[in-house]
Amino acid sequence: MFFHVQKLINEIVPDEPDPAAANALQEGLGGQFGEMRTMMQYLFQSFNFRGKAKPYLDLIQGVGIEEISHVELIATTINRLVDGAPGYKTKGGAFDAATQNMPGHNGSTPLNMALHQGNIHHFLVASQGAMPIDAAGNPWSGSYVYNSGNLTLDLIYNLMLEATGRLQKCRLYEMTDNKTARSTISYLIVRDHAHENVYAKALESLGINWGKVLPIPNFDATKFPEVRTLMEKGLHNQQYHWRLDGSEMAKVFKGQAPSVTGGPLEVPEKPPEGVPFTPGPERPEEFSPGLTPEIMELVEQVSKLK
Amino acid sequence: MFFHVQKLINEIVPDEPDPAAANALQEGLGGQFGEMRTMMQYLFQSFNFRGKAKPYLDLIQGVGIEEISHVELIATTINRLVDGAPGYKTKGGAFDAATQNMPGHNGSTPLNMALHQGNIHHFLVASQGAMPIDAAGNPWSGSYVYNSGNLTLDLIYNLMLEATGRLQKCRLYEMTDNKTARSTISYLIVRDHAHENVYAKALESLGINWGKVLPIPNFDATKFPEVRTLMEKGLHNQQYHWRLDGSEMAKVFKGQAPSVTGGPLEVPEKPPEGVPFTPGPERPEEFSPGLTPEIMELVEQVSKLK
Amino acid sequence: MFFHVQKLINEIVPDEPDPAAANALQEGLGGQFGEMRTMMQYLFQSFNFRGKAKPYLDLIQGVGIEEISHVELIATTINRLVDGAPGYKTKGGAFDAATQNMPGHNGSTPLNMALHQGNIHHFLVASQGAMPIDAAGNPWSGSYVYNSGNLTLDLIYNLMLEATGRLQKCRLYEMTDNKTARSTISYLIVRDHAHENVYAKALESLGINWGKVLPIPNFDATKFPEVRTLMEKGLHNQQYHWRLDGSEMAKVFKGQAPSVTGGPLEVPEKPPEGVPFTPGPERPEEFSPGLTPEIMELVEQVSKLK
Amino acid sequence: MFFHVQKLINEIVPDEPDPAAANALQEGLGGQFGEMRTMMQYLFQSFNFRGKAKPYLDLIQGVGIEEISHVELIATTINRLVDGAPGYKTKGGAFDAATQNMPGHNGSTPLNMALHQGNIHHFLVASQGAMPIDAAGNPWSGSYVYNSGNLTLDLIYNLMLEATGRLQKCRLYEMTDNKTARSTISYLIVRDHAHENVYAKALESLGINWGKVLPIPNFDATKFPEVRTLMEKGLHNQQYHWRLDGSEMAKVFKGQAPSVTGGPLEVPEKPPEGVPFTPGPERPEEFSPGLTPEIMELVEQVSKLK
Amino acid sequence: MFFHVQKLINEIVPDEPDPAAANALQEGLGGQFGEMRTMMQYLFQSFNFRGKAKPYLDLIQGVGIEEISHVELIATTINRLVDGAPGYKTKGGAFDAATQNMPGHNGSTPLNMALHQGNIHHFLVASQGAMPIDAAGNPWSGSYVYNSGNLTLDLIYNLMLEATGRLQKCRLYEMTDNKTARSTISYLIVRDHAHENVYAKALESLGINWGKVLPIPNFDATKFPEVRTLMEKGLHNQQYHWRLDGSEMAKVFKGQAPSVTGGPLEVPEKPPEGVPFTPGPERPEEFSPGLTPEIMELVEQVSKLK
Amino acid sequence: MFFHVQKLINEIVPDEPDPAAANALQEGLGGQFGEMRTMMQYLFQSFNFRGKAKPYLDLIQGVGIEEISHVELIATTINRLVDGAPGYKTKGGAFDAATQNMPGHNGSTPLNMALHQGNIHHFLVASQGAMPIDAAGNPWSGSYVYNSGNLTLDLIYNLMLEATGRLQKCRLYEMTDNKTARSTISYLIVRDHAHENVYAKALESLGINWGKVLPIPNFDATKFPEVRTLMEKGLHNQQYHWRLDGSEMAKVFKGQAPSVTGGPLEVPEKPPEGVPFTPGPERPEEFSPGLTPEIMELVEQVSKLK
Repeated sequence: MFFHVQKLINEIVPDEPDPAAANALQEGLGGQFGEMRTMMQYLFQSFNFRGKAKPYLDLIQGVGIEEISHVELIATTINRLVDGAPGYKTKGGAFDAATQNMPGHNGSTPLNMALHQGNIHHFLVASQGAMPIDAAGNPWSGSYVYNSGNLTLDLIYNLMLEATGRLQKCRLYEMTDNKTARSTISYLIVRDHAHENVYAKALESLGINWGKVLPIPNFDATKFPEVRTLMEKGLHNQQYHWRLDGSEMAKVFKGQAPSVTGGPLEVPEKPPEGVPFTPGPERPEEFSPGLTPEIMELVEQVSKLK
Repeated sequence: MFFHVQKLINEIVPDEPDPAAANALQEGLGGQFGEMRTMMQYLFQSFNFRGKAKPYLDLIQGVGIEEISHVELIATTINRLVDGAPGYKTKGGAFDAATQNMPGHNGSTPLNMALHQGNIHHFLVASQGAMPIDAAGNPWSGSYVYNSGNLTLDLIYNLMLEATGRLQKCRLYEMTDNKTARSTISYLIVRDHAHENVYAKALESLGINWGKVLPIPNFDATKFPEVRTLMEKGLHNQQYHWRLDGSEMAKVFKGQAPSVTGGPLEVPEKPPEGVPFTPGPERPEEFSPGLTPEIMELVEQVSKLK
Repeated sequence: MFFHVQKLINEIVPDEPDPAAANALQEGLGGQFGEMRTMMQYLFQSFNFRGKAKPYLDLIQGVGIEEISHVELIATTINRLVDGAPGYKTKGGAFDAATQNMPGHNGSTPLNMALHQGNIHHFLVASQGAMPIDAAGNPWSGSYVYNSGNLTLDLIYNLMLEATGRLQKCRLYEMTDNKTARSTISYLIVRDHAHENVYAKALESLGINWGKVLPIPNFDATKFPEVRTLMEKGLHNQQYHWRLDGSEMAKVFKGQAPSVTGGPLEVPEKPPEGVPFTPGPERPEEFSPGLTPEIMELVEQVSKLK
Repeated sequence: MFFHVQKLINEIVPDEPDPAAANALQEGLGGQFGEMRTMMQYLFQSFNFRGKAKPYLDLIQGVGIEEISHVELIATTINRLVDGAPGYKTKGGAFDAATQNMPGHNGSTPLNMALHQGNIHHFLVASQGAMPIDAAGNPWSGSYVYNSGNLTLDLIYNLMLEATGRLQKCRLYEMTDNKTARSTISYLIVRDHAHENVYAKALESLGINWGKVLPIPNFDATKFPEVRTLMEKGLHNQQYHWRLDGSEMAKVFKGQAPSVTGGPLEVPEKPPEGVPFTPGPERPEEFSPGLTPEIMELVEQVSKLK
Repeated sequence: MFFHVQKLINEIVPDEPDPAAANALQEGLGGQFGEMRTMMQYLFQSFNFRGKAKPYLDLIQGVGIEEISHVELIATTINRLVDGAPGYKTKGGAFDAATQNMPGHNGSTPLNMALHQGNIHHFLVASQGAMPIDAAGNPWSGSYVYNSGNLTLDLIYNLMLEATGRLQKCRLYEMTDNKTARSTISYLIVRDHAHENVYAKALESLGINWGKVLPIPNFDATKFPEVRTLMEKGLHNQQYHWRLDGSEMAKVFKGQAPSVTGGPLEVPEKPPEGVPFTPGPERPEEFSPGLTPEIMELVEQVSKLK
Repeated sequence: MFFHVQKLINEIVPDEPDPAAANALQEGLGGQFGEMRTMMQYLFQSFNFRGKAKPYLDLIQGVGIEEISHVELIATTINRLVDGAPGYKTKGGAFDAATQNMPGHNGSTPLNMALHQGNIHHFLVASQGAMPIDAAGNPWSGSYVYNSGNLTLDLIYNLMLEATGRLQKCRLYEMTDNKTARSTISYLIVRDHAHENVYAKALESLGINWGKVLPIPNFDATKFPEVRTLMEKGLHNQQYHWRLDGSEMAKVFKGQAPSVTGGPLEVPEKPPEGVPFTPGPERPEEFSPGLTPEIMELVEQVSKLK
């Protein structure tokens, strides 16, 4: 059974609208190696778990629960990056400066810029919001979920999955300097590092020695300032269990990290504080939420109820 | 942020293995109108919510959180139905009586029956477990998720979605009398009824009068005994909020149910007790979890740690 | 602009329900080489037609219009073949004799047989009706439509498409002796032959000589009695234009047929008479149409209006 | 059986080429809520119709037939918008001003601009024509078609479908001021409104009262001048039946419109006049139709035949 | 540049037709973890290889070339298993004994049994041959190919891929005792083992110690007699390079195997002898190859040319 | 059995990076009518070949083997065109001049330009390399492969396929003047011409006379200088067999070419020389290959081994 607190797992730093960065971040949400996939993969592996290795079940499922909050975080981040983009004016001029000479596209219509973005669906279908698709527009697919039932193999796959997620997020970091985007990208780089530690440690307990190859990609991630700040807090070596009824994951996730970054692994006692979530404003050009004044009044009556 | 208790939202009644029923139930898990879809649709609608109608956000998101537990319940049910099927002997004889005359398929090999089931992937890929696919083998797709951003439209879609889910589950009920399958099918028939009430009530608050068309399908569902038992407990008129930080959903979900079944709507104060979850047994013919005695010993050492 | 007469283009002979044959026929409806594809391909080629070769446009579009009626015919045929299957008792015993020893599947539930058919969606999703999918369950895809814009190439593709359609329908004929299925299969074998003549003739007018390779597959199709009857009427050498405003297709479609079956090509002056269409009966086990007595009364009031 | 007149259902106003608008309009053609989908959905619902509610069958099918003409209209509109784009020079300069500094892309090659458009397939595959895909390049899928067999549910779905179609077309209107695009977009906004009236009225006859929520999106659409012109003609309250053999749809579609725009519903006695269809010119850079002078002569001989 | 010898890489043992086993084997051909995927993945990794680690390039590419021959082997095996199935009579009676009571399916038509097989496309589309699909009918997808560009990660993925391939083939072995199927399954179990050694050894050279977890699945595969025979020849520890211009792969693939089965790794000097390939016989019920006597004579004239 | 020489089948002329051209070329690699498709289609047709027409088998398979080398060539060409693009500075200024006014996209981050390319996956997923997708981002699909088993039909399809491939490559030639792109495009135009000759000649041997319609598209291709050079060498009339054990293809592929370009067909005795293949350089911004100095040293030790 699942529960919710209407808060985000990490803070999203405000910055200018940036639909191109939003589109890139879709890979981290609905891509083959994005958060929807890790979430679904670990949950299915938990529901189908076999045998007595309870701490391993708790470990996989614990990461899986966290991933739902990552889906929430990255979806909200994408939302923040597209929201308001059509009406946005840059410091240097109109948003669609690059395209203003195109015939019929002089920016005179409210959603004109949508024609020249990475995925027009963000404006035409999703009302300036996030979608369950990747950065090239492919919808998320159930065929991504890997669950062989062989524990060693599932753990190796999960390690590879987290490493690929971290690799792609490092590339995303190199693609944009928008602060909204980078605040979430950096957080996920560090959490993917933690999850590499999770699966590598579990495999270490089965007898594998990782030498010096982890984490992947293997570079000094503290050269990304936002990442450094989070690593200095030890976030790459912690894994909260997200369980209201306790967890045995700490039986596996303990001792020294199996990464060259080293340090002791830790299952914190408390979940993060969380950051308040606020719904976006109305977007009349999207007819969203699109209530008439008359119906809006009905809604407000409901809202004022004790 | 999401949290978990390692319990199921409803009891799964034990019965004989039944891979055909398991395959049918996949529609309720990974089908176009199944639980993965309702879950993802309501969560995306929440993350992308616009405007000030907070009780409506809390209502949609509240149902969305419940749907994650439905995914957990139906995945586990499918798992129980396939698990052990290859070695199962019916009262009347060998499991694959129907196919025993086929050349080369005399049932002499451990997984032989897999060749003649609804989806061989349950045995070849998923190790006798559930998959994120529908009953015809199509993987779940992100293109299913509907989130127009127009509140009225999203609510109408959600009502239609729950009604279709309930329709398909009623058909599933007519397809099998396996008790494991029916215990979960019946529960979901009643919960989909509750969710029809949720969205119909929200639309009622915007000014629509549903007359006598709800719930859809509109028949006396108490003719299904397991459904009757649950309806007698009023489960079709309740909606828990699944929030650790409170919810405003009760501002909308209250008063008389907009269904011909009538009765007062209620947001209970407490979540259900839940039913303990137990991992399945080892399945050596699937090499699952497939640990050698030597590695199993390492795992047991971990498990015995304090 | 398109118009309709609520009649079928050919008669569907009644026979017993046969969901396996229905599923096979789905290939002819929603398969890669089925009627939805020919319809859409020829319509797109018409809408995007370039240049002055008007008779060729009228020819391609004329066949395209006919294909909509083929979609109607084959969908209705599939519908007739699945409809009532769950309650059907064969002369030799219960329908699902083959599966009656399976656990929990003793045929006691109204839709039990659905678990063991070619595509459970016919019962679970489509309410014992036709679907836009192929015989292996793949949904029809827009990627099937070929429209290169090069006239010679489009004509060659269309010839190949009709030949493949005819090949698959000949195989379907060999798969079932159900009269409902065969009446439509045979009709389509002959019409695909006519369409091979259409495209081969158009290519002949550009300078290609087909020798003795057509029609494909190249065998004596009159060995299929239903096909012989239709060929004796010359149906393989006729192509009606389906236009209310006249057509220039007869400028190309005339002279000797480019098939070894020979004979003069003809554009008939009148469309076929057509066969009345009757909606199927209610199927309560599918909750279809699923109106309550109360609502049914409202509907009947409407129906009795002048 | 279906028939055709080689005319368009509404006039397409000429304007400059605009491949970005063309790509956006693909959503209305091959998108999940576009015309191919409404067409196929209503036709399948008609072919699979159950029970005695004949006026409802005629209503659904009547709209379905109209949708084929919408597919024809929007495909031709897209065609007009892409056609000739590569050779087009804007008033303000070269078409691809925005991209002229890119290496190797100085516009010196005939199809160079294709590299920088919304979907290169419009030029590489479709020869400057329309395709059965959406605005993000996804091919149309048979999985879009909804046909539950439950009449109430199908009607609710159809209402939601038309409302979503209208919502997306209103957004498309805000994306471009190209007159070619807007003439078709506006027409479809009004027709989707009419179709909302169709399905809402049918549901009203079953007992639902829509209050003031329709049409969706619920705003003053007469602020779009082209839409106002069409609404002043009452086009949003009319539904022609497109049947050569009469129709019972007027038994349902009559009385006051269930939208806040009000007014009496009407089934006109005659179909619209229609607008002549002319094939596009040759496009040598696409090798379309690509006939050699020698073969062109053969074609012309055919065309001159009586 | 690629070259071919018209021989198979391993012998296919003859046995009775077995379309169910054929369908299962499709997973090994066109499945997400089948031979088409390994082939394409390693070839793309080779074409996109970066940096100076030439022996690693040669190693990945060498395995990739072998996989093309595996595609050839398994496609031919599937072909042998379906070929002739429709006309086949078992020792115990008619092939479709299990389904002979179904209405209209008394086996009287030449392809009747096709209606009741795992994938009707084997008979309707593929003419009793192999297809690029998996055992559940999903077409092979380019989205399967993984090529991150990070060498460590690609090697880990490849190891996981081979292990999953081997796991699924071990399950296939447990599904059928048909000798045709098992001869190829067993060969691929051993070659996947060899490929696990390839990638594990490459990772060992980067510093990872695998302990005792390999090969996956980790069980005594010599309990499968056909596998034992091949392992006794050391086939699990050999990797030929398939290059006409030499290879540096032996710089990595040498020393002790990183599996618990141990033994020295070896790059043999010569490729296997290979086994002659013979095309299948004509299948008139499939109209394949479907030449008329007249055209057959033309073909024979060609064949007799020097 | 397949063999390899680590050389390219034709020279790739060096030029500036051009990711837009690279993306366009993906159609030729992973598109519905690209090289992966011809390769797989001909190989499957060979593996499933029926009957005694050995020279036709050798012909189809011979072309199929060549197509693997085409996949290698075009993948490498795409690779060369994307490689290094992010750091590239044009003569006229920064690469992303067109987009430099966009908010947050001032080109200050290493992979910033990736946000504005045809497919961001080239940078985010594929590490500046080629992918098995088309120019619109659709992954290659097994459903493309056509293999009807009817020899005449397969040959007609193959002819159409080569003609469509040549048509699209001629359009690609018109899209870019980048020399790297054009060197490969031109080579493939000529080879597709040769393959049109192959299939047209085989059909000629069955009795078809092509008149003057071939090759398609039918224009003077020598107006493309790079094409002229290759045609002057007769490359459009040659077909090497790529077999180490000889081939009977020359029994069909001989005599006059069935194209208006005429000339004698020829099966050369020797394969082309081939052009050396060199792996690309490291791309640190992609973390590719991403080895640490420490691990790089291990790799270099391996590379220095005898």
